[in-house]
Amino acid sequence: MKTAIIMGSDSDWGVMKSAVDTLKKFDIEVEITVASAHRTPQKVHDFVTKSDAQVFIAAAGMAAHLAGVVASFTTRPVIGVPINSESFKGLDSLLSTVQMPGGIPVATMAVNGAKNAALFAAEILALQDNNIAEKLTAYREQMAAEIDAKDKALNESIL
Amino acid sequence: MKTAIIMGSDSDWGVMKSAVDTLKKFDIEVEITVASAHRTPQKVHDFVTKSDAQVFIAAAGMAAHLAGVVASFTTRPVIGVPINSESFKGLDSLLSTVQMPGGIPVATMAVNGAKNAALFAAEILALQDNNIAEKLTAYREQMAAEIDAKDKALNESIL
Amino acid sequence: MKTAIIMGSDSDWGVMKSAVDTLKKFDIEVEITVASAHRTPQKVHDFVTKSDAQVFIAAAGMAAHLAGVVASFTTRPVIGVPINSESFKGLDSLLSTVQMPGGIPVATMAVNGAKNAALFAAEILALQDNNIAEKLTAYREQMAAEIDAKDKALNESIL
Amino acid sequence: MKTAIIMGSDSDWGVMKSAVDTLKKFDIEVEITVASAHRTPQKVHDFVTKSDAQVFIAAAGMAAHLAGVVASFTTRPVIGVPINSESFKGLDSLLSTVQMPGGIPVATMAVNGAKNAALFAAEILALQDNNIAEKLTAYREQMAAEIDAKDKALNESIL
Amino acid sequence: MKTAIIMGSDSDWGVMKSAVDTLKKFDIEVEITVASAHRTPQKVHDFVTKSDAQVFIAAAGMAAHLAGVVASFTTRPVIGVPINSESFKGLDSLLSTVQMPGGIPVATMAVNGAKNAALFAAEILALQDNNIAEKLTAYREQMAAEIDAKDKALNESIL
Amino acid sequence: MKTAIIMGSDSDWGVMKSAVDTLKKFDIEVEITVASAHRTPQKVHDFVTKSDAQVFIAAAGMAAHLAGVVASFTTRPVIGVPINSESFKGLDSLLSTVQMPGGIPVATMAVNGAKNAALFAAEILALQDNNIAEKLTAYREQMAAEIDAKDKALNESIL
Amino acid sequence: MKTAIIMGSDSDWGVMKSAVDTLKKFDIEVEITVASAHRTPQKVHDFVTKSDAQVFIAAAGMAAHLAGVVASFTTRPVIGVPINSESFKGLDSLLSTVQMPGGIPVATMAVNGAKNAALFAAEILALQDNNIAEKLTAYREQMAAEIDAKDKALNESIL
Amino acid sequence: MKTAIIMGSDSDWGVMKSAVDTLKKFDIEVEITVASAHRTPQKVHDFVTKSDAQVFIAAAGMAAHLAGVVASFTTRPVIGVPINSESFKGLDSLLSTVQMPGGIPVATMAVNGAKNAALFAAEILALQDNNIAEKLTAYREQMAAEIDAKDKALNESIL
Repeated sequence: MKTAIIMGSDSDWGVMKSAVDTLKKFDIEVEITVASAHRTPQKVHDFVTKSDAQVFIAAAGMAAHLAGVVASFTTRPVIGVPINSESFKGLDSLLSTVQMPGGIPVATMAVNGAKNAALFAAEILALQDNNIAEKLTAYREQMAAEIDAKDKALNESIL
Repeated sequence: MKTAIIMGSDSDWGVMKSAVDTLKKFDIEVEITVASAHRTPQKVHDFVTKSDAQVFIAAAGMAAHLAGVVASFTTRPVIGVPINSESFKGLDSLLSTVQMPGGIPVATMAVNGAKNAALFAAEILALQDNNIAEKLTAYREQMAAEIDAKDKALNESIL
Repeated sequence: MKTAIIMGSDSDWGVMKSAVDTLKKFDIEVEITVASAHRTPQKVHDFVTKSDAQVFIAAAGMAAHLAGVVASFTTRPVIGVPINSESFKGLDSLLSTVQMPGGIPVATMAVNGAKNAALFAAEILALQDNNIAEKLTAYREQMAAEIDAKDKALNESIL
Repeated sequence: MKTAIIMGSDSDWGVMKSAVDTLKKFDIEVEITVASAHRTPQKVHDFVTKSDAQVFIAAAGMAAHLAGVVASFTTRPVIGVPINSESFKGLDSLLSTVQMPGGIPVATMAVNGAKNAALFAAEILALQDNNIAEKLTAYREQMAAEIDAKDKALNESIL
Repeated sequence: MKTAIIMGSDSDWGVMKSAVDTLKKFDIEVEITVASAHRTPQKVHDFVTKSDAQVFIAAAGMAAHLAGVVASFTTRPVIGVPINSESFKGLDSLLSTVQMPGGIPVATMAVNGAKNAALFAAEILALQDNNIAEKLTAYREQMAAEIDAKDKALNESIL
Repeated sequence: MKTAIIMGSDSDWGVMKSAVDTLKKFDIEVEITVASAHRTPQKVHDFVTKSDAQVFIAAAGMAAHLAGVVASFTTRPVIGVPINSESFKGLDSLLSTVQMPGGIPVATMAVNGAKNAALFAAEILALQDNNIAEKLTAYREQMAAEIDAKDKALNESIL
Repeated sequence: MKTAIIMGSDSDWGVMKSAVDTLKKFDIEVEITVASAHRTPQKVHDFVTKSDAQVFIAAAGMAAHLAGVVASFTTRPVIGVPINSESFKGLDSLLSTVQMPGGIPVATMAVNGAKNAALFAAEILALQDNNIAEKLTAYREQMAAEIDAKDKALNESIL
Repeated sequence: MKTAIIMGSDSDWGVMKSAVDTLKKFDIEVEITVASAHRTPQKVHDFVTKSDAQVFIAAAGMAAHLAGVVASFTTRPVIGVPINSESFKGLDSLLSTVQMPGGIPVATMAVNGAKNAALFAAEILALQDNNIAEKLTAYREQMAAEIDAKDKALNESIL
């Protein structure tokens, strides 16, 4: 089981690192590249068509075309992560990623939603892999337990 | 292979019918329900936990919580379709669907992106089903051929 | 008289503390929990259905479904506080909270409007409790007096 | 039990009629006036201070100050309904109604959310009136039943 | 010649001080008050109806009703200054100030446009006062000279 | 007393006619021209510098530069009317008109706020003309009376 | 002198026809194709790299990647025309076209700004072609004359 | 070959310096001026009509009229750079620059897109100058090489 992560710029790494960390928790192999839809279109094409990943995660900011371009080269699932931008606070990245025309879908996450992109890749791969499916269930139970702990800690601190 | 479609209101059917039509082209079984995250929360819970679908598509408008609520009940992939709204032209539906906090992902499509939701479900299921994978490739070739035909027709009409 | 405050994350406490402080000024009992609509849906359900509070205040950010989910479980008044978000500066939280479809109302306050949520809860409870009603009148008189004092101080500082 | 409805213009009646119809279903007395925060400020003041309604619903469009002005004259609960506007599709009405500064809360509904304003008034009054509380429970059950009926009808029409 | 400045909060003084400084350059008398449309509605009413200023400048943030409320009490010109807000970066303040319904105009400046509010007051008063008119002409000439000086300095620094 | 109205296109006449009608009610002389900031910059310059109007009203849509350009040629008061646009529903026109940098103010009205532009011109001119001042007072009384009549008619129609 | 027009869909022809008509007025040769950045990426690549046009005009709606993709394949000037969209009224198309990252520029026109795209292409080509330059000057003079005619007609119709 | 850069304020220099640096890389002569559409309209007119530059780059913020005003005085290509603004994060600058009415085009870059403005000027001039054309090709190759280097560095740092 393998997921490929494509970033439009190495400056996206600060956000996308959590996707890699999350995928590794689920024992999913990760392949990473920096490739720009506009500055290195051929590299994007070659990476996508040669990769044997089952799922792609593409992260980009501003006029974020990267996920759409990746999706134009493959019928494997492509997950888009809009990266927050200074001028429009992510609105440009979000609309450029999510408003895909009919025929070429991109599964869009929240702005800077790197962790959820990894979890969604895991959910897709879990359909074929019971190990991942079980880890997803455990992950949710752990999240719920953490919230309970924070709830308890907060209520105790107030008293 | 089965995909479940949940709509917050039967008024969403005009948009979502194309998702059903598209899924059927790929020989994917479809299960449909009308269930509201707010007006029938128990029904949503029961539908999701009892369904044997591999993938869920949830469509809702305005403060579109449906996809997020579905995702809170399952670790199977959930695809969200924000339905266009009169007041905010889909901005409310889109942000309510896509801006999920870390931990519970929803794969969001464009506003009214019912067809792409179906195609994305097909892309997920194609990872386990060569028949669907081949149909996806053929679907893309057909789209390209249609564009070529329209290009030719337009250029001929102009001359 | 009792008001319950539900926060989607303990990181909302920085904003919501002022709601607790304000409720206490009106001698209204406060019950607090951290519970997420997405990560702990069952906990939200159980908290709401078991609580004997007359009024609920729900605070959440991003795709802020919490107030809507609380409202789906009770016919008691639910007040929503959209928490400011980095990417959309509260627009996502506001629209996700306020744009509820017909049938399940959520009384929405300004982004980060924790103090007003508490005051609105007090206004509801004051309909049955003269002590609270009198305190509300006194609170407004005090606010007016503070503005007069600031007005005077500013004018004196300018001279 | 009585709710007062104030509209900034008689052109808001097309939207607000459903609030009156809904309040009547709950046997809540309704008092209606047309009064503008800007064109008839004295009338708004006199109406609010003389009315014996427990709850106020104020509806206005564009720079929708009406609910805020009503709230400045009373400590009883004020519910605001932003009316859809041509130029900004309700964004101006919504922000003008909901973004109240600390001290004077307005419980804001969705754009054109007249029915929910009435239901929220009923929820407030139900805290003191078991008859209304029971009708609210019945109302929700009826909504759920209607959704089930629509679900069934849709599934039958598709087969 | 006199202009009155009303601020919804003394925290607006950081922005509005430049309006006072500018009015003084034109020898226009300034009257200043802190008064809130929502927290001290009577004070706003009394200030406006008793003031002998020819022009009013009203500054407020968020659901900025102040300028509209001032305008409801007088037929003298009212200039509105939307104050920048954290959540919506001034969009809420701007729309609440500018989108006045027909009948009660508010002359709206840019977000935080305190200096321009003072200059516009001066332009109004200059119609009756040649001294102010001449100072306005001199002010523009000075601005142009400053830009020329900056242009020269920049070009010299680059060489 | 004279007000000049400049429109960027004769297609703005449908909106701006109400400004002319309103100015005539106040016996204010009106001068009208169609002149574009972009297509006929010299014409705008010549019109503004030659006109003996006390006040200018400038109406334009999209990247609405007209009011700002008029203001760059005169120190007399300039009122801007953003005209509604198809693509951005007036947001582009509003921001282009109101967000003037420090030094050159434009008094901005609501999108399509032609009537208020005329009323504001009347308020400015009323400072020097008692006849207009009295008509403004009468106009407000008439508006209030009309609202009372509509209020009465609505309440009678409901009974 | 030749300009190529690429449309993402033949449904854009209704908007883009005016670009063709305008280019023909300037005796600029036009090459037209329908090619989608997502559905026919290879066709876009081949068209751009084989075309001998000096300038490209690319028109697309929603997540409008077409102009950016064209620009990634050539260093010749690319002009982008965002096509109006139902859900976001062109905001998605505009931001997807204009917010290009550093390195690959797209010269963006107004939403649906087909005529201006053609005029801008003419302005570029006029730098090498006096015939086009003279026609541009004549075009502007004609626009000014038309505005004068409309001004006169409007003023006569009012009298 | 020469490009003129006009800035509305010398505070824009921090952003626009990269345009000058980029133009110099392509051996394009640069002429720089600070001139405001509103505060020094005559200076803008004189600069544009006297300059022998082939291309203009105009940068301004807020109600950014500068590029449109420059374009009204010349038929040579005008490139607009919207400068980021505090209140609206560049939305006001962008819409004021890009939404030009038919007849007078402005080629708009991303908010703060100074480098791309210079590259686009180079693309226009390269149509007549092989030296620039070759440098553009080399520039793209260098960008691609830099991305490859960053990709390699990132992958090595992760291992």
